[in-house]
Amino acid sequence: MRDRGLLIVLSGPSGVGKGTVRKALFSKEDVSLHYSISMTTRNPREGEVDGTDYFFKSREVFEQLIEEDKFIEWAEYVGNYYGTPVDYVEQCLAEGKDVFLEIEVQGAIQVKSKFPEGVFIFLMPPSLSELKNRITTRGTETEDLINNRMTVAKEEIEMMDAYDYVVENDQVDLACDRIKAIVQAEHCKRTRLREKYKQMLEAE
Amino acid sequence: MRDRGLLIVLSGPSGVGKGTVRKALFSKEDVSLHYSISMTTRNPREGEVDGTDYFFKSREVFEQLIEEDKFIEWAEYVGNYYGTPVDYVEQCLAEGKDVFLEIEVQGAIQVKSKFPEGVFIFLMPPSLSELKNRITTRGTETEDLINNRMTVAKEEIEMMDAYDYVVENDQVDLACDRIKAIVQAEHCKRTRLREKYKQMLEAE
Repeated sequence: MRDRGLLIVLSGPSGVGKGTVRKALFSKEDVSLHYSISMTTRNPREGEVDGTDYFFKSREVFEQLIEEDKFIEWAEYVGNYYGTPVDYVEQCLAEGKDVFLEIEVQGAIQVKSKFPEGVFIFLMPPSLSELKNRITTRGTETEDLINNRMTVAKEEIEMMDAYDYVVENDQVDLACDRIKAIVQAEHCKRTRLREKYKQMLEAE
Repeated sequence: MRDRGLLIVLSGPSGVGKGTVRKALFSKEDVSLHYSISMTTRNPREGEVDGTDYFFKSREVFEQLIEEDKFIEWAEYVGNYYGTPVDYVEQCLAEGKDVFLEIEVQGAIQVKSKFPEGVFIFLMPPSLSELKNRITTRGTETEDLINNRMTVAKEEIEMMDAYDYVVENDQVDLACDRIKAIVQAEHCKRTRLREKYKQMLEAE
């Protein structure tokens, strides 16, 4: 029987570049993580594909699934629902696969209450001014919305204490390297391996 | 001011290949660890160089240094003293350098009581029979000594619970990769970075 997989949760303030880092990470050949696609009621941005970037659903469908307790976590964020369907995650973990979630900060806190053994990674901007640049250059936001986002982002950064690791997103490739190292190190945690080696000692 | 460096402690049962892994690790260009050379009263093995592999000292000198409390840890093992001089380690950590110790299991437990913030890595053989092979093929031991070493090794493996990570030494290069990942991940630990980011939030 394979060991149970790791649940890796990447989160961080809006605008820090979670999606960019996640895509870069999954483009690497030596990464064997299973991406858990989130569900959302927001409209697709240009280039986003249903079933690849998100499952795009109506509010009615989403609320029905909440009723049926089919989410590990869900949140309403800037007027839209976001959530992680539970079935795929549970199945992968049981098969020994590492599951990767990229979610908003509110959602990560919910996941932690259900999966305290998960690995929680907080993606940080190099500075708050750089975060403002990134939010601004997305080019789709008004000034009021930018200021609102910055306020929310600061509140989100205050929630860093719930996380195991902080990864600076100064360069996407460096951030990916750090995340890969964290996953590899977590597989070497003594608390995860103790039982295996205890059996080895008893067997021989 | 630079952050304080990490103290990385590699240990594991006698014969598992700690010295081989350490040498391979330090031969890599992308590794910036500072190796803390141990002091010992045992005789040099073929090819071992004083001041590179160990500081080789007499029992009289070693016991004098114990009296003066000049060791982070020391132990008597199979009739010889082994110890880590304290001054070099403290200086490197204060300068923000990562210090790497490769020591026996007894010594690592002492280090943990003095440096609980250290990163403790236990090097494991793939199996006990493989460990016996490695002890035997060193070629310098009698059968009694081999059996004695195996008994000690099993007792050492029982002490794994004091460690943060377990790294399997199935292949030296893979073991090195795991250790490198652990060091990189530890630098991303939220508990080590919280203060830095708190200051960032307050400054802006």
